[in-house]
Amino acid sequence: MTESLKIGVLGYRFMGKAHANALARLPMFFPDAPDVERSVIVGRDEEALADAADRFGFESTATDWRDVVGDVDVFYNLGPNHLHAEPSIAALEAGAHVFCEKPLAPTLEEAEEMRDAARDADGVAGCAFNYRFVPAIQYAKGLIEDGELGEIHHVRGRYLQDWLVDPEAPWAWRMDKDLAGSGALGDLGAHTIDLVRFLVGDSDVAGDITRVSGHLQTFVDERPVPGTDEYKPVTVDDAYTAQAEFENGAVGSFEASRFADGHKNDHTIEIHGSEGSLTFSLERLNELEVKTGDARGYETVLVTDESDPYVGNWWPPGHVIGWEHTFVHENYEFLTAVAERAAAGSRTQSGEAAEGGEFHPSFEDAYEVQEVLDAIERSDETGEWVSLE
Amino acid sequence: MTESLKIGVLGYRFMGKAHANALARLPMFFPDAPDVERSVIVGRDEEALADAADRFGFESTATDWRDVVGDVDVFYNLGPNHLHAEPSIAALEAGAHVFCEKPLAPTLEEAEEMRDAARDADGVAGCAFNYRFVPAIQYAKGLIEDGELGEIHHVRGRYLQDWLVDPEAPWAWRMDKDLAGSGALGDLGAHTIDLVRFLVGDSDVAGDITRVSGHLQTFVDERPVPGTDEYKPVTVDDAYTAQAEFENGAVGSFEASRFADGHKNDHTIEIHGSEGSLTFSLERLNELEVKTGDARGYETVLVTDESDPYVGNWWPPGHVIGWEHTFVHENYEFLTAVAERAAAGSRTQSGEAAEGGEFHPSFEDAYEVQEVLDAIERSDETGEWVSLE
Amino acid sequence: MTESLKIGVLGYRFMGKAHANALARLPMFFPDAPDVERSVIVGRDEEALADAADRFGFESTATDWRDVVGDVDVFYNLGPNHLHAEPSIAALEAGAHVFCEKPLAPTLEEAEEMRDAARDADGVAGCAFNYRFVPAIQYAKGLIEDGELGEIHHVRGRYLQDWLVDPEAPWAWRMDKDLAGSGALGDLGAHTIDLVRFLVGDSDVAGDITRVSGHLQTFVDERPVPGTDEYKPVTVDDAYTAQAEFENGAVGSFEASRFADGHKNDHTIEIHGSEGSLTFSLERLNELEVKTGDARGYETVLVTDESDPYVGNWWPPGHVIGWEHTFVHENYEFLTAVAERAAAGSRTQSGEAAEGGEFHPSFEDAYEVQEVLDAIERSDETGEWVSLE
Amino acid sequence: MTESLKIGVLGYRFMGKAHANALARLPMFFPDAPDVERSVIVGRDEEALADAADRFGFESTATDWRDVVGDVDVFYNLGPNHLHAEPSIAALEAGAHVFCEKPLAPTLEEAEEMRDAARDADGVAGCAFNYRFVPAIQYAKGLIEDGELGEIHHVRGRYLQDWLVDPEAPWAWRMDKDLAGSGALGDLGAHTIDLVRFLVGDSDVAGDITRVSGHLQTFVDERPVPGTDEYKPVTVDDAYTAQAEFENGAVGSFEASRFADGHKNDHTIEIHGSEGSLTFSLERLNELEVKTGDARGYETVLVTDESDPYVGNWWPPGHVIGWEHTFVHENYEFLTAVAERAAAGSRTQSGEAAEGGEFHPSFEDAYEVQEVLDAIERSDETGEWVSLE
Repeated sequence: MTESLKIGVLGYRFMGKAHANALARLPMFFPDAPDVERSVIVGRDEEALADAADRFGFESTATDWRDVVGDVDVFYNLGPNHLHAEPSIAALEAGAHVFCEKPLAPTLEEAEEMRDAARDADGVAGCAFNYRFVPAIQYAKGLIEDGELGEIHHVRGRYLQDWLVDPEAPWAWRMDKDLAGSGALGDLGAHTIDLVRFLVGDSDVAGDITRVSGHLQTFVDERPVPGTDEYKPVTVDDAYTAQAEFENGAVGSFEASRFADGHKNDHTIEIHGSEGSLTFSLERLNELEVKTGDARGYETVLVTDESDPYVGNWWPPGHVIGWEHTFVHENYEFLTAVAERAAAGSRTQSGEAAEGGEFHPSFEDAYEVQEVLDAIERSDETGEWVSLE
Repeated sequence: MTESLKIGVLGYRFMGKAHANALARLPMFFPDAPDVERSVIVGRDEEALADAADRFGFESTATDWRDVVGDVDVFYNLGPNHLHAEPSIAALEAGAHVFCEKPLAPTLEEAEEMRDAARDADGVAGCAFNYRFVPAIQYAKGLIEDGELGEIHHVRGRYLQDWLVDPEAPWAWRMDKDLAGSGALGDLGAHTIDLVRFLVGDSDVAGDITRVSGHLQTFVDERPVPGTDEYKPVTVDDAYTAQAEFENGAVGSFEASRFADGHKNDHTIEIHGSEGSLTFSLERLNELEVKTGDARGYETVLVTDESDPYVGNWWPPGHVIGWEHTFVHENYEFLTAVAERAAAGSRTQSGEAAEGGEFHPSFEDAYEVQEVLDAIERSDETGEWVSLE
Repeated sequence: MTESLKIGVLGYRFMGKAHANALARLPMFFPDAPDVERSVIVGRDEEALADAADRFGFESTATDWRDVVGDVDVFYNLGPNHLHAEPSIAALEAGAHVFCEKPLAPTLEEAEEMRDAARDADGVAGCAFNYRFVPAIQYAKGLIEDGELGEIHHVRGRYLQDWLVDPEAPWAWRMDKDLAGSGALGDLGAHTIDLVRFLVGDSDVAGDITRVSGHLQTFVDERPVPGTDEYKPVTVDDAYTAQAEFENGAVGSFEASRFADGHKNDHTIEIHGSEGSLTFSLERLNELEVKTGDARGYETVLVTDESDPYVGNWWPPGHVIGWEHTFVHENYEFLTAVAERAAAGSRTQSGEAAEGGEFHPSFEDAYEVQEVLDAIERSDETGEWVSLE
Repeated sequence: MTESLKIGVLGYRFMGKAHANALARLPMFFPDAPDVERSVIVGRDEEALADAADRFGFESTATDWRDVVGDVDVFYNLGPNHLHAEPSIAALEAGAHVFCEKPLAPTLEEAEEMRDAARDADGVAGCAFNYRFVPAIQYAKGLIEDGELGEIHHVRGRYLQDWLVDPEAPWAWRMDKDLAGSGALGDLGAHTIDLVRFLVGDSDVAGDITRVSGHLQTFVDERPVPGTDEYKPVTVDDAYTAQAEFENGAVGSFEASRFADGHKNDHTIEIHGSEGSLTFSLERLNELEVKTGDARGYETVLVTDESDPYVGNWWPPGHVIGWEHTFVHENYEFLTAVAERAAAGSRTQSGEAAEGGEFHPSFEDAYEVQEVLDAIERSDETGEWVSLE
C-alpha cells in the first residue's frame, strides 16, 4: 500500500458527488485524516463520467468496475442497490477496503453474502449510514450511554419525503423491486433502523429489536417513463409502517413515506426513557431536543459548541453545518480505520483485528439492519409478527 | 318535559367538574342553548358529594343512581368505565337522554349493549369525546371535507402522557382491567380513534379503518396502593401502538403512552393527503398546522378568528381558549340535540329521527371506536392483523 | 358592608363580558374568594344593557354611573379610557373599592388625579393589567426573584396585532386621542411596561426604567366611519417603538403595532440575564421558554402543573387554560384584597394599611406605567431621551 | 491578467478559513466560476501562517501585505477592522480587485476613504456581508421585490450572541475601540443594517433609513488578558439598540448583543408589510417564515428546492446547507464580477462600467452601512435622533 490511499469510486451521481466532496474537504478540516488519491471513477455513460471526473477531481475513469477493484486501496460502491453485492465482494476478495452505500443490498441473501465476504476479508468493510455522524446524533448517543435517559420505553422513527405524492412523478429505478429491493422501507427505513440500533441497540437500556410487525403500501401502481409514452409498474412500497419490541420490552414505532406532502427530508427520531426524552429531526440537524433530570420540558440544544462531536473541526458556536458534513465525518472515520488496519497488517496475519482499525456501521451492522427490514417485509406478507433472534 | 332540562350527573370528580363548569357557562356564551337545571349529583362519599354539589351548583345529591335515572330529563354518566353500561342503559330505558364519558365501556360486549339500548330508546345518547369540539379540529374537518387535503394517504395519531413514568406512582382504578377495560388504549387511544374517524372516517377521501395490527405493553407490573403498604397488580397496558389500513388504502399509525417523559397531554394528529397535510397538538389547541395548495410548507393557523367554529361566541381574534372550552361546545351541541329531539317528540312515535335532534359522537359512533380498540387488543393477543367489517 | 360584596360595573362590551365571566366562575374554582353580588351594570344603550345584564347575570341596570358609585361596595370601571378618571375618583370618594381597566387614563394628568384619589381613599384601587396573572408570568417572576436569571442585561417587549393593516378598517374610539389618549402605545404598550415593571422593576436585578427614547408612527391618517360615507382622522399612533435604560444599566427595547400582519395578539417578553434567559408569548400563554443554570438552550416549560401559580385550582397537568383565566385570577386577587381591607377597617381609622389588604397593580403602579408612556410620547415629540426619576 | 485569477489573502484565522474553503469548493459546485490560484496568504506569525497555507492550499506566504498587493489579481482583506483601509486602498491603487471583510472600517472617515478609492479604481471592490447570500434571504428579497409583502411598515433586526456574558471571558481585539471601531454595533449590527438595506432599502416599498436613535451599552468595563494577570479596558459597546425611520415612514427596530444568554448566533430579521410578513433566523438558515396573500399565519418554507437561489448547485430538496455555504455563494458572485470586469477591460478605458462586472455589497454599499452605524453612535452620544441624507 502506498502512503496515500488510492480510491476508486463506482457511481458519480448524487452519492458520488457527496463522497467526492467529503474527500476533497478532509485535508482542510480534518488534517489528521489519511491522505487519499481520487484515482478512478466508474460508470457507464462515458461523457457524463468524464465530466464528473473533472468536477470531482478524479484522475481517471473506467466503465467496468472489474477493471478497478483489484487496482485500488479503497473501493467506494455508490451504485444502485442491485450493484452493491457483486462489486463489493469482488473488491473485498481483491484485498481492497470497501465503503458501500446503504442499504447494504436489495435482498437479505445478498446482504448475507456481503457480510460473509467482509468476515473473510482483510479490508475494512463499511456501510455508509451517514446519519450516525450528525453531531446531534452522536451527542444523543452520549447522553443515552451516560444513562441520562435511563431505561428506554419508547423509540419512534419516521422518515418523511414527498417526492412521489404527484401520481405523474416519473418512474425511476428506486421504484423497481429487482433494482432497489424495496422502496421507502429500504431507502429510508434502513436509515431509521440503523440509527435506532446505533442509539439504543447496543446498549443495556433497550437492546436489540426482538420482533416486528410490518405494513407496506403502494399508493400509485405505475408511473410514466421519462421521454416515452410508457408507464412502468411500481413494484416496491411507497410507504411502510412497523411496530417493534426491544429486548427490554421497549416499544418501537417506525414509518417512512414518499407521499408525506410538506416534508422534504424529515427524518425524525424520538426516544422516551425512565429518566428523560429526546427528539431529533434531520431538517434541523444542528438541533437536539432534550429533556433530562429535573427539567420540566424539552431543551433546544444547538449542537454547535466546540466540544460537540466533530464541531471543533468546523466553525465557532452557532455557525451551523449542513447535511453534507455528515459525509465528511463518516469518510474521516472510515478512512482512519482503513489507515489503522493497513498499518497493523491484515487480520488474517495477526490472528485478530487490529487495534482501532474498526469501522461502524460495518457490513455486519448493515446486515443486521437488513434482517429487520426483511422481517418487516415478511410480516407484511404473512400478516403476523416476525421474530428476530 | 319541563321547559328547563333537569339534569342528573353521576360522578363529581375531574369529569364532574368539567361538565358542571360547561353547564354553568352556557347561558353567558351560548345564549341559544337550552335552559338546564343542575338538579342532582350522584356519588358514594356523601361528604365529598355535598361539597361538590355546593361548588358545582347542584340542587341535591343522591348516593344511588337508581333513584335518579327515572327522575331527570338528562343523565350524565361521568363515572369510571365499569359503571358506564348499567346506569346508562337504565337511564335510556327510563326515557332519559344520556351523555356518557368515554370510552363507552370497558368491553366490546357492554358497548354493544349500550349501543343497542340507544337504538331502542327515545332519548339522545351521546358519548363525550370532547376533542371533536376543539375549534382547530372542526376547522380541520372542514378543510378535509372541502377536499383541501385531497385523497388521504397517511393518518398518524399519538397521545402522550407521563404520569406513570415513575414506577412508584400510585395504583388507581385506571390500571385495573375489570374497572377500566384497558389502559392507555381505552383512556387515550379511544380519543385518537374517535378523532380519526371524525376527521376522515365518514369521508370518501379515506373511509373507515378496515384492519389493524396492535401491540400493548405494560412496563411496570404492580404499583403501591396509597395509604397502605400493599402493591396491586397493573392489569392493563401502559402503552399501545397500532398499525391500520383504511378503506381507500390509507396507512394509519397510532400510539399512546403514560410513560412519555416530557409530555403532559400531547394528543397529536397528523394527516397527509394528495393535496395537503395538517398537524394538530392538544397542548397547543388554538393552533393548526396546515399545508394546502401551492404552499411550500406548513402554515401555523391560530384558529381564533370570529369565523372559526365556536370562536365567535368567545373572544376577539388572538385571545386563546383552553381545554375546558371543548366541554362547553360539546354540551352545547348535545343539549341542543336533546331539546330538538324533545320538541319533535320521540322517534318511536314519529317513526323516524327528528330533524336535527341528532348528536355525534353517538353511542353508535362510540361503539365503532370500541370495535377498533377491541380489534387492536385481539391483534396483540394473537399476533395477527384483525379485520373490521 | 354586607357579607356579600355588591358590585357595580361600568361597561358591558368586551371587558364587561370578560369580568362578568370571571366573577361567575370564582365560586366553582376559587371557593375561598369573597362572595359577590352582581348588582348593577351601567351603560348608555338601554336595550343592549338589558341584554347584557341578562346574559352576564346582573340584577339591575343604570344609565348614569353617578347613580351607582355611592351604592356599591366595589365599582368596576371598564369604560373607554376617557371615562376612567371621573367615575373612578367619584367611586373612591364615595367609599367604594375600584377596579379600573388599563391604561389608567388617557393623560398623565388624569392618571395623577386618580392616583391621588386612591391615596386618599379607604378603598382598594386596582388597575386591571391582567397579564400579570398568567401562570407562566408568575412563574417567570418567581424565577427572577430567586435569582435564576442573575443580573438582568436585556429586556425586550413587543405587542403585535394586525387589525388595522387594512387601510379601510373602520374608525373606532381607540383611534382618537381625546377618547383614548394614545393608540398602540397606551392600549398595548401599557401592558408591556406593566409586565416589565412587574417582572424586573421592583427587583434589585434591574430596577426601574430611568430613561426612554420613543418613536410613534401613524401609517393611515383617516378611516371610514361605519354606516356613513365619512372618514374621521386617526389622531393616535398605529405603532410605537422605544429604547430604555434601567437603574442597573440594563437595556430595554419595546414595541407595539396594530399593523403587524400575521400577529393577532402576540405579546412577547424576552429577558436575558447573567445567569439565564426567558421568553414568553401571549399566543402560547401556557408555555414559558426558560434557560437557566447549565442548560445549553431554552427549555419549553408547559406551566400547567398543580404546583404552578393558580393552576391547582383548574385542571390536571397538560390541560391548558385560556386568555380569560387571567381575569379570574386578577378578580380573585383583587376581591380578596377588598375583603381583607373591609375586614380590617379603613386605613384612615387604623392609621396604616390593613395587613394583606393590598392589591397590585394598584393605581400607584398604573400611574408609574403612565409616566413611562408619557415619557415615550414626549421623547417622540422632542427627538430626545427623557429621564424618569 | 492570467487566465486564472491569482489571489492573495490577508488573514488566516476564522475568516481566512471560511474564504479558503469557499474558494476550494467552487470548482465542484459552481463549475462556471472563474478559475483561481490560491497564491499567497499574508500574516505575522510565520509558523502559524505556514501551517495555514498548507491546510488552506496556498502556494506561498508573506508577512507584509505591501509585498503582495501589487502582485495579485485579487486581494482579500480578512484582517481585523483597523487593517481594512490602508491595505485595501493600496491594493485598489495597485490595480487589484479587493474583497474586504465587514465592517468596512472602524470609522466613517476610513470607510469614506475606502469608498473613494473604490470609485477611482478599475477593480471590483466588494465587502463580504455574507448573509445576503443565504438562499432564504435571497428568496425573501424576491418576495419583497415581487410586492408579496406590499408596502413595508415594520423592520426588525436583532443579532444575539452570548460569548461575553461571563464577566471573566478574555479580552480580545474586538473589545478595543481603536482596533475594532465599535463592538456589537460594528461586528453584528453591520450585518443587520446591510441585510435591511438589501431587503428593503433599494426598493420603493420602504426606501432608505432616514433617521436613527441609538443606544450603546457596555456591561463589563474590563476583561482579563489571556496569559497575563492584567485586565484591559473594554472600550466598545457590548450591546446596542436603535430605532429607525425609513423613507416611506416604516418603523425600524434594531439590536445586537454579546450578552444574550442562550443565543449563539441568532441573527433574526422580521418584516411586516401591508400584504404580508416574513421572519428569518440565522440559526435556522434553511428556513423562512412567510405570510402572504390570504394565508392566515406564517408558512415555514424550507428553502432547499432546486429552484431556490444557489440551491440547485448543491443537493436535492430537504438536504440542508450550512453557514459556510454563504461564503461559497458570495465568492462565486464576487469572482464572477471580477472576471466580467477583467474581460471587459477597465472602466477608465471604456468610460463606463462593464456590463455585469458589478458586485454588491460594494464598498459604496458598505460605506452607507457605516453611515448608519456612525449615526447610531452619534445619537447615543448626543441623546438625540440623527438624520441621514
